[in-house]
Amino acid sequence: MSTTGADHLIANAVHNGIEVCFANPGTTELHLVEALDKQPNIRSILSAFEGVCSGAADGYARMSGKPAIGLFHLGPGFANSLANQHNARRHNTPMINLIGDQASDHLAFDAPLTSDIDALTGWAGHTMHTTSAQSCGQTMADAVAFSLSGEQRTASIVMPADHAWGAAEVALHDADVAPRFHPTSEAIAEAAEALRSPGAALIVGGAEINDAAVVSLGRIRSATGAAVHLTRTAKVAVGRHLPVMRELPYFPAPLISALADVSTAVMVGRTEPVTFFGYPDTPSQALPAQARKIELAGADVDLARGLREIAAELGAETDEPVDNAALPAVDPGTLDTRNLGTAFATALPEGAIVVAESVSSGGTYRQLTAQAAPHTLLAILGGAIGGGLPSAVGAAVACPDRPVFALQADGSSLYTVQSLWTMAREQLDVTTVICANRRYQILDVELANAALDVGAVGRRLTDLGGPDIDFVKLGEGFGVPGRNVTTGVELAEALAWASNEPGPHLIEAEL
Amino acid sequence: MSTTGADHLIANAVHNGIEVCFANPGTTELHLVEALDKQPNIRSILSAFEGVCSGAADGYARMSGKPAIGLFHLGPGFANSLANQHNARRHNTPMINLIGDQASDHLAFDAPLTSDIDALTGWAGHTMHTTSAQSCGQTMADAVAFSLSGEQRTASIVMPADHAWGAAEVALHDADVAPRFHPTSEAIAEAAEALRSPGAALIVGGAEINDAAVVSLGRIRSATGAAVHLTRTAKVAVGRHLPVMRELPYFPAPLISALADVSTAVMVGRTEPVTFFGYPDTPSQALPAQARKIELAGADVDLARGLREIAAELGAETDEPVDNAALPAVDPGTLDTRNLGTAFATALPEGAIVVAESVSSGGTYRQLTAQAAPHTLLAILGGAIGGGLPSAVGAAVACPDRPVFALQADGSSLYTVQSLWTMAREQLDVTTVICANRRYQILDVELANAALDVGAVGRRLTDLGGPDIDFVKLGEGFGVPGRNVTTGVELAEALAWASNEPGPHLIEAEL
Repeated sequence: MSTTGADHLIANAVHNGIEVCFANPGTTELHLVEALDKQPNIRSILSAFEGVCSGAADGYARMSGKPAIGLFHLGPGFANSLANQHNARRHNTPMINLIGDQASDHLAFDAPLTSDIDALTGWAGHTMHTTSAQSCGQTMADAVAFSLSGEQRTASIVMPADHAWGAAEVALHDADVAPRFHPTSEAIAEAAEALRSPGAALIVGGAEINDAAVVSLGRIRSATGAAVHLTRTAKVAVGRHLPVMRELPYFPAPLISALADVSTAVMVGRTEPVTFFGYPDTPSQALPAQARKIELAGADVDLARGLREIAAELGAETDEPVDNAALPAVDPGTLDTRNLGTAFATALPEGAIVVAESVSSGGTYRQLTAQAAPHTLLAILGGAIGGGLPSAVGAAVACPDRPVFALQADGSSLYTVQSLWTMAREQLDVTTVICANRRYQILDVELANAALDVGAVGRRLTDLGGPDIDFVKLGEGFGVPGRNVTTGVELAEALAWASNEPGPHLIEAEL
Repeated sequence: MSTTGADHLIANAVHNGIEVCFANPGTTELHLVEALDKQPNIRSILSAFEGVCSGAADGYARMSGKPAIGLFHLGPGFANSLANQHNARRHNTPMINLIGDQASDHLAFDAPLTSDIDALTGWAGHTMHTTSAQSCGQTMADAVAFSLSGEQRTASIVMPADHAWGAAEVALHDADVAPRFHPTSEAIAEAAEALRSPGAALIVGGAEINDAAVVSLGRIRSATGAAVHLTRTAKVAVGRHLPVMRELPYFPAPLISALADVSTAVMVGRTEPVTFFGYPDTPSQALPAQARKIELAGADVDLARGLREIAAELGAETDEPVDNAALPAVDPGTLDTRNLGTAFATALPEGAIVVAESVSSGGTYRQLTAQAAPHTLLAILGGAIGGGLPSAVGAAVACPDRPVFALQADGSSLYTVQSLWTMAREQLDVTTVICANRRYQILDVELANAALDVGAVGRRLTDLGGPDIDFVKLGEGFGVPGRNVTTGVELAEALAWASNEPGPHLIEAEL
């Protein structure tokens, strides 16, 4: 049987460790569909909207450490994936996008779906073009290498349809992954020394803070008295087995206040704290102007190793004592953000994965992570809303033996609500809790902070009511069973129901 | 009361005829929300996903002839709108995008939501930057002018938040709209002469073919015997009162066959027929290689006037006789694409607006348009799927006195399914018929045409089942009442039910 450029490309993906493809193909990708069909070592997962594919690839790669392939149809199809490409870029997630383009000699005729794909792939990261059917294998190997090297980890392959259908011999190429950056021992020593100074703070974030990294942070804090702040962390180990670490606040005033006493900041993971937005008469940089800043490494550093070396340099070999408070009892009454967060944190089993996209309603859970069972928290750092549900899809695909919980704002859930169908189709163990406050509440807070007193028209632009969305019906429409809950007791019961049945569930938590 | 750059900008929008804003704002747009709140002459409509805003702006402008404002949050928010920006570009629709950017002095800090917005606005069309709060009014006037001048009609304003909140005096600027291109009388005469030659064909399309244009096409055809083909028409008048006009086929083989006898092609509206995609051993250009090609005008031409002038030049003053067949009776039995299309065409009242995004299931309706009551058909030309439901939203906002029908493929509907919520919220008179064949059927056809025999994995990438989506529940979840129908009788009854009640309805037509 003759083989095509598509076969050659997919074979090289598998050869370099790719196991999953999140796909929404069109006509120019059908030879890639055929190649995927022939390849038993890759799992192909369809989504009904491309933003689900890109967000799922992000969640998958954050949990597995390996890129998936996102398969997209031409420029407009890839465009639909961009918001979650943005989040992935902020998470420093390894991402490989595969985009079928018009056949080479068809491009000039400006057929309806033709557009400047490179403008979009450039926005998302690094663009690679196949140059012939036979070039496709090396291009895929190069994309894998790019995605696993350095800080910028999104590689997009633009592959004209004739390269996909053209004859090519399958030959396997090894991805040439660059060694990870690591700070020198002199830089480690300088950081350690700086952390001994009064008013020192260690600010860490980036792609991953695992258990070992948190233990090192505790040792360093315990030995030096330096403050430790987490910020912009795409994946963090949390739970009652670990020293309590705090994230820097979201809004400018408490953020600036939290850092007011810092005279020396050691930053690891491209973490200089800046406000999320600019505001009148408010500095963008949250550290005091006179603070000394030491940037030890970017987001591609092996943070656990770097922190272990700092701790060793400090002679900090004793674990910080861990005696975290027990979780409070769940208030059985009418739901608010407090008993919602408490019930949620209480329901998490050891080894759970939580995807949190709920700035307004997730605060109590975030406060209680250090009192909950050991689990992994995935945040959505890029601020592009709609990352939560797709990331949950990807995390569940990466970790089929771990239950996944999505703590999800109602407004944000709608951007990629099609995720629910993929959860149902793949029977993923995801429990989605929709925090249904019927508002874009963050905007109400921002309106108040800006002292903007808008009337009915403006309110209607930050309000999700009129009609209220019935998330249980949306879930059922996509094949995910659901319940509406209005009290702490009902939420706890629904979380138990969801945990005791296989497959996905949705809980609409009425706030 | 002091006024801001945002007030200044919105005042200039209203001054230049803007009446509607389709919005999904975030923090950097809140001063624009405040300005909209103060402005009684503009209707602000929230959607829960940006692709709804851009598609609605497209549908609105196609029906009203005027741009709406699409209000988007930074780069990722605008990115979500891009697929329907692409369609709007292919429709030559006047579009004005308004994107809040990071405050000027915050931009350099690369806060999480910062991205290269210009890459995205450039992909969509023309980019305009405000340069200060006081510049915002002129920028909006210029955007209105750009959107109403020439062929390329998408103007995107990037407005840093400090320009929105900064003090500005409201001063009104007139949009300087360029006169429309029109062919010279010599060019008209040359086209008319060419249409007299044997094997002549007139190929028309573009932004709009109205009743008068169709009447002229009939006169020209009747007088010359030239073939008339419609292609790439964003908005077309159809119905039993008009001569029968046929669209060129979608797939390459019938397209090339339909044009095989053409020796001279007069093309108006950037309509040179090319295949939608490139295929092995298939020419991209569908006209015979030796055919003479005369391109009379691009998509910005006043087509009705141009055709009237050609008819006058030909002395073609007699209407082509109109004696269109009556609609066939609806087969009451199990639904297929034939009785679905027949029931749909039969249910349309005079003055209806139909938005058709259903390549696989809409064929019978498209064949029957000349037998139906007089109505307007909006197509989705760009091939970016997900344009149908949002265009129906926009058409209903533009024409509150005309019933809107969306004939919608199931797969495509999911890309912008959040449209249903805006239909419910604004109580728009839209009847959505979901053609539920549970497949991306166009891909099955393409797989067969390409002789690709894929197995279970590949089939699962073109299949929308497992589980089937319950569109009635999706509709109800978003506040739109719905019915599932499985026979011609049930569909006819459901269409009557939808027409007899105010507000939106959804019919899931099981194929």
